[in-house]
Amino acid sequence: MLKVIKIGGNVVDNPAKLEKFLTDFAALEGPKILVHGGGKIATTVSKALGIETRMIDGRRVTDEETLRVVTMVYAGLVNKTIVTGLQRRGCNAIGLSGADGQFIVSEKRTSVPVDFGYVGDPIPEKFGIGTARTLIDAGYTIVAAPITLSAAGELLNTNADTVAQTIAVGMATAYEVELVYCFEKRGVLMNVEDDASVISEITPVRFGELKKQGIVADGMLPKLENAFRAIDRGVKAVSICSAETLSEPGYGGTTLKN
Amino acid sequence: MLKVIKIGGNVVDNPAKLEKFLTDFAALEGPKILVHGGGKIATTVSKALGIETRMIDGRRVTDEETLRVVTMVYAGLVNKTIVTGLQRRGCNAIGLSGADGQFIVSEKRTSVPVDFGYVGDPIPEKFGIGTARTLIDAGYTIVAAPITLSAAGELLNTNADTVAQTIAVGMATAYEVELVYCFEKRGVLMNVEDDASVISEITPVRFGELKKQGIVADGMLPKLENAFRAIDRGVKAVSICSAETLSEPGYGGTTLKN
Repeated sequence: MLKVIKIGGNVVDNPAKLEKFLTDFAALEGPKILVHGGGKIATTVSKALGIETRMIDGRRVTDEETLRVVTMVYAGLVNKTIVTGLQRRGCNAIGLSGADGQFIVSEKRTSVPVDFGYVGDPIPEKFGIGTARTLIDAGYTIVAAPITLSAAGELLNTNADTVAQTIAVGMATAYEVELVYCFEKRGVLMNVEDDASVISEITPVRFGELKKQGIVADGMLPKLENAFRAIDRGVKAVSICSAETLSEPGYGGTTLKN
Repeated sequence: MLKVIKIGGNVVDNPAKLEKFLTDFAALEGPKILVHGGGKIATTVSKALGIETRMIDGRRVTDEETLRVVTMVYAGLVNKTIVTGLQRRGCNAIGLSGADGQFIVSEKRTSVPVDFGYVGDPIPEKFGIGTARTLIDAGYTIVAAPITLSAAGELLNTNADTVAQTIAVGMATAYEVELVYCFEKRGVLMNVEDDASVISEITPVRFGELKKQGIVADGMLPKLENAFRAIDRGVKAVSICSAETLSEPGYGGTTLKN
């Protein structure tokens, strides 16, 4: 089973958490792809460079200067820090941005209703399966930065969750794939107050019940809907878990499957 | 013939020159690898971040903060700008640092007599021929950033000329290779005042004569000695030329061969 695992800012920004995660990730059997977010380092670097960070609805507005910063931070610093950390653990990693080997081709967002600037959404049909197969079949672990390539040949800042989903769905045309989202919580909880109440498995039928009961709501709802969309498109299972429990069975979190 | 072409700061720092160079580079037939230097952007970014740049004998002293900057700038901004520029020209490029797929493994400089910090010299025997072959044989163009991987798994800042030479010599074990150094001048000149006086070919015998006549001296001497060392180690030819004349026969410069 090929694993596509996504980590976000809560891991990338925390050296101790990142080290532990990389140890657990390197120990996972089989072919694997790690997708990382950018974390707060881009904001810190922007600030130091005197570039104002503008967020709308939690998304970074990416003007030309900000694009240069996220390219430096995501494809440079964060990506190579992770690649090196994996190499230290005997995991032969290669870092890719979406531009490398046309790994992730995207479409620039229209400027209406909100102009996010150099921000794009992946085009699933243009996923760089050739590049991915070349590396995975040769035994490399891919580390993907959330910077993509527009058809016009521009770099575009891209949501890392969407990048992970695009890779998982794209790889599912040639491999058995599972997608793992690491986030702040341990998984989908029966009781949001109780970290031990992780629901270990959710099928579409169970999902319907959990929605009806109001147990899955708010931010978790689109996350799970997206996950089931990936499953509809060929991904075998999607897990939602904490980066800290990656070495546990079922990643210590919630697994969605048909 | 596989081409390994190195460009330095005079091209990387000049958007118009870089665009023209990338057009000429993309048009070259056959497998190819581009090695880029870092240019002055690292100094500019360091300055903006309040990090002091220290140079000794023209080499950057690389402390931990400076290593973060060169990783961002070389492996992130410069590398992805070049990869994207090549993709726009229909050349399927993949950018690598030395850590990616253990492409260039290096040894940290000793701190005596001068402590350059996180600076390393490539170990030719550990050249990542497997990674290079995987990508080149699959039809990709490699774009290499001058950041390498120590055996201890640290990133190290590395001289781009040396990286290019290591790649050329390493690839020569499996391919017919030519190495092309683009620099500020048109080539080796009979008369340093006259740009039109390029010597088109230099053999070891001719090299001896030119040294005796004092035509090759100063900075050019170690350049040519290094070039002949690469030829001794299996590289078919080494050209020294301007990035601006890459499309001309013999790259418009001086070619060294046995």
